[in-house]
Amino acid sequence: MNVQARGANHPGNMVMLPFSNLRRLREERPLMFVKGKGIYTFDEHGRDYIEAVSTFYCVNLGFSDEELIEAAVEQLRALPMYPSGIHRTVPVVMELAERLAEKAPVRGGHVMFATTGSEANDQLLKFTWYANRVAGEPQRRKIISRRASYHGGTIATTALAGSPALQEAFGIPTGDSLFVSHPTWPIGANPGETEEAYTDRLVEELRQTIEAAGPETVAAFIAEPVSVSSGMFPPPVGYFQKVKALLDRYGIRLFADEVVTGFGRTGRLWGSETLGIEPDCISCAKGLSGAYQPISAVVMSDDFYSYLEEGSNSAGIFNHGGTYGGHPVSAAVALKVLDIFERRNILGHVQSIMPIWQKALASLEDHPLVTATRCFGLAGAVQIARPGEGGPVAASPSLAPGGLSEQLYQEGLAAGVVVRPLQGCVVLAPPLIITEAEIGELSRRLRVALDATLAALPR
Amino acid sequence: MNVQARGANHPGNMVMLPFSNLRRLREERPLMFVKGKGIYTFDEHGRDYIEAVSTFYCVNLGFSDEELIEAAVEQLRALPMYPSGIHRTVPVVMELAERLAEKAPVRGGHVMFATTGSEANDQLLKFTWYANRVAGEPQRRKIISRRASYHGGTIATTALAGSPALQEAFGIPTGDSLFVSHPTWPIGANPGETEEAYTDRLVEELRQTIEAAGPETVAAFIAEPVSVSSGMFPPPVGYFQKVKALLDRYGIRLFADEVVTGFGRTGRLWGSETLGIEPDCISCAKGLSGAYQPISAVVMSDDFYSYLEEGSNSAGIFNHGGTYGGHPVSAAVALKVLDIFERRNILGHVQSIMPIWQKALASLEDHPLVTATRCFGLAGAVQIARPGEGGPVAASPSLAPGGLSEQLYQEGLAAGVVVRPLQGCVVLAPPLIITEAEIGELSRRLRVALDATLAALPR
Ligand SMILES: Cc1ncc(COP(=O)(O)O)c(C=O)c1O
Ligand SMILES: Cc1ncc(COP(=O)(O)O)c(C=O)c1O
Repeated sequence: MNVQARGANHPGNMVMLPFSNLRRLREERPLMFVKGKGIYTFDEHGRDYIEAVSTFYCVNLGFSDEELIEAAVEQLRALPMYPSGIHRTVPVVMELAERLAEKAPVRGGHVMFATTGSEANDQLLKFTWYANRVAGEPQRRKIISRRASYHGGTIATTALAGSPALQEAFGIPTGDSLFVSHPTWPIGANPGETEEAYTDRLVEELRQTIEAAGPETVAAFIAEPVSVSSGMFPPPVGYFQKVKALLDRYGIRLFADEVVTGFGRTGRLWGSETLGIEPDCISCAKGLSGAYQPISAVVMSDDFYSYLEEGSNSAGIFNHGGTYGGHPVSAAVALKVLDIFERRNILGHVQSIMPIWQKALASLEDHPLVTATRCFGLAGAVQIARPGEGGPVAASPSLAPGGLSEQLYQEGLAAGVVVRPLQGCVVLAPPLIITEAEIGELSRRLRVALDATLAALPR
Repeated sequence: MNVQARGANHPGNMVMLPFSNLRRLREERPLMFVKGKGIYTFDEHGRDYIEAVSTFYCVNLGFSDEELIEAAVEQLRALPMYPSGIHRTVPVVMELAERLAEKAPVRGGHVMFATTGSEANDQLLKFTWYANRVAGEPQRRKIISRRASYHGGTIATTALAGSPALQEAFGIPTGDSLFVSHPTWPIGANPGETEEAYTDRLVEELRQTIEAAGPETVAAFIAEPVSVSSGMFPPPVGYFQKVKALLDRYGIRLFADEVVTGFGRTGRLWGSETLGIEPDCISCAKGLSGAYQPISAVVMSDDFYSYLEEGSNSAGIFNHGGTYGGHPVSAAVALKVLDIFERRNILGHVQSIMPIWQKALASLEDHPLVTATRCFGLAGAVQIARPGEGGPVAASPSLAPGGLSEQLYQEGLAAGVVVRPLQGCVVLAPPLIITEAEIGELSRRLRVALDATLAALPR
């Protein structure tokens, strides 16, 4: 069976691809990837691409890690599937839960697996409502998120996105959602506003939102430590500390969505560690298995979990689960990821490469299209505008098609580098294993794409 | 690394297991499975179990299928991950979509992958609201399901379960849900009611439900062709034909949840085929990959899909997706499942073994605890009651802990057969590859468990 040749003549309109124009898909064959090695993928014509966003911020250990493949194969051969539930499970799932609970910056962790990042966040909301009912506060339902966030594609997690256009398009009920501004320092600051004053303004907005909703109706605040997919704005200094202090005053929980930031992206295992946060619950996915296999998890504090335990004991069982939550093959791969982080000192590598990464991004600032660059851990954004057209933009909720960044994305493909276009910028988050030489090649290709984009502009 | 020994001494309270009593989990090590072969699994003490429910109705091709493992390994080596989206994908995903679209009893199929059965149904609801908005009917939102159904664990799919206790426990919003009775012929019939009259009564209930809600607000009716997990009641004769005719009159869509019935469980590839239904959309998961890898899909009719295409074209993109939807390794395994169905004539085997299966179940009816057996395709239920305590029960929404069937479940574990206990019955759905001799061994073990349950009853 020739993986490369398969599908060569299939019309594109039977498969519905996410985040695509389905009309275009009917007429135009999508870009087909058939091979991967390290930070590179190869399309069906043999052309290579640097995956500068780790595809969807997920292939953090690159594409051809033999140890990860072996971990999957070993579990496939022993027991290719066993769903965890009804007091039955498999050793790798138990062990992974224990390792995650130990490593997560959550007080006394308990781990519930799911299969995707969306499901992790969706079940976290479900558990929150359950816990608050057990705690005698069933009215504490509302979840605060930041506008232009992404926490998943299920109906309930789409309600956290804070994008009215998106929510209207899909008719998403948002009755339990509250939204506050996404920090975009320094772009979002008022003229002359200091970083501290900017932070205080956001925290005051949060306070007013809570007060207006009725503090006793608010269950949690969910945020990514650093939101790469909204344009990679690191939080202004003191932001999370002040937010946490405010939430504590109202008994509102802090949830960290570490689907992207978890597993090394920020230079430590968790973004929460890098920012010095101790959330009540953490959700993770993507990097957890290097994306070789679908798996996600929610890590919960003792306090939060105790309500679930109590409720399950009164009811007899905790009546929630999924067939594939903590799939044994996925769990085996995730365990190997944790091994690799230790044995190969992935975090040490990330920390040593971060200054080089930052310099490489900054070096693009001399380009006529680049108005600024941002950097945090091993992620970044390149802000672009037509010459003479710079100026502030807001955090970007999702793939905004068209515009200059879409052109840069297309020129990137031509130059052999895959970036993620947002409104006014492209974001980057390469595999954590990237070397200094590869960073050089990445920025070289990016510059080629920038040049081509500039050259194609109407004069 | 010794898979068998790992986790041997881990306390159970770090992992939160679905459908379990979390207090009990704190004190008692769960049953740990370490190996599988054919229809058998083996626990950490080397004891073997016949997986008479294919674990969670999913390991349809058994546990050690070398071809499925090889398909996974081949894709892992070529390209262990590539998310489909933004006009990029991989050949196996394209090919799988085409094969599914061809095979599904849906007019002109289009396929959107997801990762779990829950996500498939969740996105189907999301797509429905999207399509109806594009069609100029945004108020057409309500989804009718049958009480005591299971369509998934996300918040939005839990709203379809029609179990007030479950929905209250998790604070699930059910504002867009409508519920009708689950057919449980003959148990649910009125005294003297014929099968036809029973069907007509259910259809009339559906009509009244639609009329009361306002037909212009109702989007779809979702049902499993045969709901194994509600106690395995085959629909009474003519049920789906009459339901479909009624829905058509109101322009309400029919969605078939084939997460359990898909891929051979009923003797044909789809339960819809066995029952002669042509739904607007079909969701599937589990058997799609024999559960070796997480993958699910929604197959949509041309008509339904056309609204998504139109909407995506106006907006630029279809702004929905998931990192792991149609994971390449999962897609490679699913393609191999379809190959195996053809090359090994799995459907032929199921059809030839069905009469033997039915006879084996019926043979248990002489047992003092057994009040009835039900059978459909390669699934069944054994209705049980304390001697002298028989009598009608309703469809069972989910695992009801405690009671006689819980005792039978426990005795089954002791006898080396894993069944699924519901209120008043246990359900069965063995791997499709089960042989005549293995059916004999399964019913022998089940009888041992029944005897032990009877012997333990207080006199
Ligand atoms: C921050 C964040 N949360 C949640 C998700 C959802 O994860 P998944 O795509 O695995 O469902 C994503 C995916 O991009 C994400 O970036
Ligand atoms: C009929 C039906 N639909 C949907 C689901 C949800 O599938 P998953 O557990 O993969 O999310 C299940 C799971 O048991 C099911 O039985």
